[in-house]
Amino acid sequence: MPFINVKMAVGRTLEQKRELAEVLTREMVRILDVKPEWVELVIDEYPRKNWATAGQIHADKYGPGCGSQGIEEK
Amino acid sequence: MPFINVKMAVGRTLEQKRELAEVLTREMVRILDVKPEWVELVIDEYPRKNWATAGQIHADKYGPGCGSQGIEEK
Amino acid sequence: MPFINVKMAVGRTLEQKRELAEVLTREMVRILDVKPEWVELVIDEYPRKNWATAGQIHADKYGPGCGSQGIEEK
Amino acid sequence: MPFINVKMAVGRTLEQKRELAEVLTREMVRILDVKPEWVELVIDEYPRKNWATAGQIHADKYGPGCGSQGIEEK
Amino acid sequence: MPFINVKMAVGRTLEQKRELAEVLTREMVRILDVKPEWVELVIDEYPRKNWATAGQIHADKYGPGCGSQGIEEK
Amino acid sequence: MPFINVKMAVGRTLEQKRELAEVLTREMVRILDVKPEWVELVIDEYPRKNWATAGQIHADKYGPGCGSQGIEEK
Repeated sequence: MPFINVKMAVGRTLEQKRELAEVLTREMVRILDVKPEWVELVIDEYPRKNWATAGQIHADKYGPGCGSQGIEEK
Repeated sequence: MPFINVKMAVGRTLEQKRELAEVLTREMVRILDVKPEWVELVIDEYPRKNWATAGQIHADKYGPGCGSQGIEEK
Repeated sequence: MPFINVKMAVGRTLEQKRELAEVLTREMVRILDVKPEWVELVIDEYPRKNWATAGQIHADKYGPGCGSQGIEEK
Repeated sequence: MPFINVKMAVGRTLEQKRELAEVLTREMVRILDVKPEWVELVIDEYPRKNWATAGQIHADKYGPGCGSQGIEEK
Repeated sequence: MPFINVKMAVGRTLEQKRELAEVLTREMVRILDVKPEWVELVIDEYPRKNWATAGQIHADKYGPGCGSQGIEEK
Repeated sequence: MPFINVKMAVGRTLEQKRELAEVLTREMVRILDVKPEWVELVIDEYPRKNWATAGQIHADKYGPGCGSQGIEEK
């Protein structure tokens, strides 16, 4: 505790996951005044056909991929 | 917000996912009086060996597959 | 199975929850070809200070309440 | 998308929640190359009798409260 | 890791939560061959108006309460 | 209801999942006084690059695999 669950599009690199884990944990520790070893982070990755906004599947809305190049999150 | 998470057996078609996203969002908008673009839907798909009811794994209870033909949900 | 989890702002009426449960279940049954008794729905309700979009807490962005009157979801 | 769910002990201030939302979103945007408005964050708060580590309820292990003063997260 | 999330009707005693945490953790440790201190358990409690089966809110189906006396789980 | 979600490292056998489902359900039934058929269990499996403790990805901390041989949970 605390426990962080990140849901995001599949396709990020291991390096991005490493940085997410490191940075989000560091900020949780700082803001909440907790010990680092209590912070757990789990990443759920989704293909774009399993995520929708405003009723439209992201695979239809943005095409394949993730992030800023023609992507649902950008 | 609102955020809908659907957990279901793996194996549905893209068309079924499209309809799920469209219909569930439309009904959320109508019932809760929210804007469509605020509604997000995420689908988690599970193999039957990762789901159990009454202590029995669905792979054992229903065999492979999903939906109505000899299936855990039917 | 399937299992539906709805996360939304606190403040909806019992009648809205009833309709959500009834309609979402009916549509899941129709689209996924499952038996009604397999569909479970759970609602998580959040105060606006526990939800943020684009880094801003909804309590700050929209004030108190839920739904269409000056609300985060509208 | 992305969607961040933070589970933590009940008792943090609105100011801490504001900072969590602001900082975690900013870092997600930077690391994942997404647009700020796609990032949603939801906080689940738990009393210590609803959380356990190593089979021991935190209410028993740490007493009441949250954070660094004799707390499960410190 | 592992992380156990139990969703159940509100109303159980602290003693029941203690036993849940102790027993579920012990069994996870035994079956998965993990260290006890890696096992975290979090309990989400729901009022019956926030849970539905087959499209019917449990508050309507079972009345108030939890467990075996005229209850949704019994 | 109740609903149990177990998040764990990928790599366990079907036999371990069967035992988890059977034992966790049996204990829930005994402790909470509920009917077995109301208990659902869903298992989420994670590769070690999607899980972190204290800001460090488990793939870096423990290498590949799961459980007791040089593993994050042991």
